[in-house]
Amino acid sequence: MPTEQTAFTEATRPKLTFWFEFASTYSYPSAMRIETMAREANVEIIWRPFLLGPIFKAQGWDTSPFNLMPAKGRYMWQDMARQCEQLGLPLVQPAPFPQHSLLAARIGHAGRAQPWIAEYSRAVFHAEFGEGSDISDPALLASLLLEAGADAKAVMEDAASPENKTGLRQAVEEATELGIFGAPSFTTESGELYWGNDRLADALAAAR
Amino acid sequence: MPTEQTAFTEATRPKLTFWFEFASTYSYPSAMRIETMAREANVEIIWRPFLLGPIFKAQGWDTSPFNLMPAKGRYMWQDMARQCEQLGLPLVQPAPFPQHSLLAARIGHAGRAQPWIAEYSRAVFHAEFGEGSDISDPALLASLLLEAGADAKAVMEDAASPENKTGLRQAVEEATELGIFGAPSFTTESGELYWGNDRLADALAAAR
Repeated sequence: MPTEQTAFTEATRPKLTFWFEFASTYSYPSAMRIETMAREANVEIIWRPFLLGPIFKAQGWDTSPFNLMPAKGRYMWQDMARQCEQLGLPLVQPAPFPQHSLLAARIGHAGRAQPWIAEYSRAVFHAEFGEGSDISDPALLASLLLEAGADAKAVMEDAASPENKTGLRQAVEEATELGIFGAPSFTTESGELYWGNDRLADALAAAR
Repeated sequence: MPTEQTAFTEATRPKLTFWFEFASTYSYPSAMRIETMAREANVEIIWRPFLLGPIFKAQGWDTSPFNLMPAKGRYMWQDMARQCEQLGLPLVQPAPFPQHSLLAARIGHAGRAQPWIAEYSRAVFHAEFGEGSDISDPALLASLLLEAGADAKAVMEDAASPENKTGLRQAVEEATELGIFGAPSFTTESGELYWGNDRLADALAAAR
């Protein structure tokens, strides 16, 4: 006999879309814990990597606002250190910051509906902010794909296809149309937007 | 016999400085609940009104970032509505936004060490964001001062003095030196900085 919990089937479970940017600091703690929290909330997570670069560029910015505003940038690293300590996550400041996330995002876009998307994304964030690795390195990304159970060679080819590149650009447009201006962001099926790692719990509650 | 609670005297209670801007949306929910939360945490709050205008100007901005970035501004009002609902606070979008907060801040600076500073500040925020009143109106501010138990006439004169105007400018410089770039911000006695209404509880914990 199904319990109240199991009565939600895959089809009827409420969905929350997780919009993240691989170079974004606060996307890291969200990526590491969203599936655990979503399981408790009985919400299905749709992983949607996108790029903040074009959104910042439209704003007249040529790099991260954390670089353009030094005081805000200094504070962000202090705050990240405190947040990561509270969550038991390691934190290393990668160089350069922000990292070049285009290839990681293309791979993520190619695999956004694959069973390995969550594990791959967490592995990229861990390499970047847990170990300080350079996530623009194709060899690193290929090895993370393999560890996540993906056919790395096929996925890398798929990621480089014109269709996939266009698809990622369209993801940025879709994010913009949803009102997204930063990462992480969360959108419910009814179109409610929540911005920031601090709003993850609220977004999950809203999704239900 | 003193209990553990009352063993803290006025002199030994840890202090947390609350840096706020009367025109700042997220300063409102912090101002309304900080004394209640501080009492529970046995922390003394130092109220320090300052101005974000000069800090934004140094950044090349001539108005609130919520106006310069329309998507962020639209989101902020949605988020404020949700936050205020959670806290049981009324929310009205004042016009113009941001409000001209110079006179309110000068009065707040003149009275920053007076017993009425908390009540006056809450009254200004309530008038602005709870009722949509124009807080640049001297008559409104005088009536809020009277209700808070201040000698409104003397305080308004004090607020307009050259010494007080210079003092408020120095407060902005002091804030900048502490690394402050937005409001609300909280600084502990050891110089730790916390930014945003979302960090109020963390800041109080750090102050202890």
